[in-house]
Amino acid sequence: MASGTITLSTKRQMELIDITAEISKAVRASGVAEGICLAYNPHTTAGLTINEGADPDVQRDLIAALREMVPLDYPYRHAEGNSPAHVMTTLTGSSVTVFVEGGTLKLGTWQKIFCCEFDGPRTRTIHWRIIPG
Amino acid sequence: MASGTITLSTKRQMELIDITAEISKAVRASGVAEGICLAYNPHTTAGLTINEGADPDVQRDLIAALREMVPLDYPYRHAEGNSPAHVMTTLTGSSVTVFVEGGTLKLGTWQKIFCCEFDGPRTRTIHWRIIPG
Amino acid sequence: MASGTITLSTKRQMELIDITAEISKAVRASGVAEGICLAYNPHTTAGLTINEGADPDVQRDLIAALREMVPLDYPYRHAEGNSPAHVMTTLTGSSVTVFVEGGTLKLGTWQKIFCCEFDGPRTRTIHWRIIPG
Repeated sequence: MASGTITLSTKRQMELIDITAEISKAVRASGVAEGICLAYNPHTTAGLTINEGADPDVQRDLIAALREMVPLDYPYRHAEGNSPAHVMTTLTGSSVTVFVEGGTLKLGTWQKIFCCEFDGPRTRTIHWRIIPG
Repeated sequence: MASGTITLSTKRQMELIDITAEISKAVRASGVAEGICLAYNPHTTAGLTINEGADPDVQRDLIAALREMVPLDYPYRHAEGNSPAHVMTTLTGSSVTVFVEGGTLKLGTWQKIFCCEFDGPRTRTIHWRIIPG
Repeated sequence: MASGTITLSTKRQMELIDITAEISKAVRASGVAEGICLAYNPHTTAGLTINEGADPDVQRDLIAALREMVPLDYPYRHAEGNSPAHVMTTLTGSSVTVFVEGGTLKLGTWQKIFCCEFDGPRTRTIHWRIIPG
């Protein structure tokens, strides 16, 4: 069994944090040559996504578009005032899966794995697990 | 192999139904100590998501926000009239994956697993499968 | 280990392409009786989704609704002009998982697996992998 947890501190209310280096390191340390690597987000106001990492503007555009799409000032009932963050969490999803081939993560050329902060700044944890097969 | 199906009857056109207890029971009964548990939704007008289960208002806000975001009266071409439900299905997704550790589901403190009904009331089935590893 | 890649040429800027037949064929050829089949999209302006395949109008409605929801002419910062495609990619997701039972894909009655082109026409590749268990 290879599994573990990444801890990160977010700086803004909403931002994407690239966790690819930590996940790649975990894959190499696991010694698993072929299989799948899963990252899991245990929070309900943060998500996980895979998207372009080369141009940081893509990350900013993603946050901007989600803020345009999800109603921010709808008469929500949840008293904590962070319902838009809960909605964005469901839109992005709670886990991502990437193939492991030849002992490394098989990401596309431009792909990076991002933790999506929607209600920060906070300390967040992301769990990972590598399944041979 | 540990796998099975949960059957549930939805009561409203759109609602979230907490299926965490049934999935947790399946994990315990499987005897699998370490691995992943997958829930799969075989329907095209219902989804699966993981979000906050403590305050039922979060579930209502999620449905309300999806109804604000997805055009409900767009000139859709699909004659059955339930295209918004198909769109919400793609936004939420067809499966969720949760880690199994020490024989139990490793959900976050506030997380619950929900079947998302978008075109009810109906009888829905959710398949689950537990993979050791 | 059973894994491989599907290559497809998209024809329009935005469209859904049914890849169920290719994935089903891969499952049969793998000889795996019980497990999970994953499809993975390595692109950042294309996604994967599972939805209704019987009526092609559902596919057209999905594209139309995403174009209504995601701001197309927002003052995005990413200079390539395809930020809406990046947003749609995050909304649909980078992978789908389907159970394998009795040597075949356990899809729902109306479900098909689609590659979602959001910035075509292009040549796209989809990786698949079958995990017994």
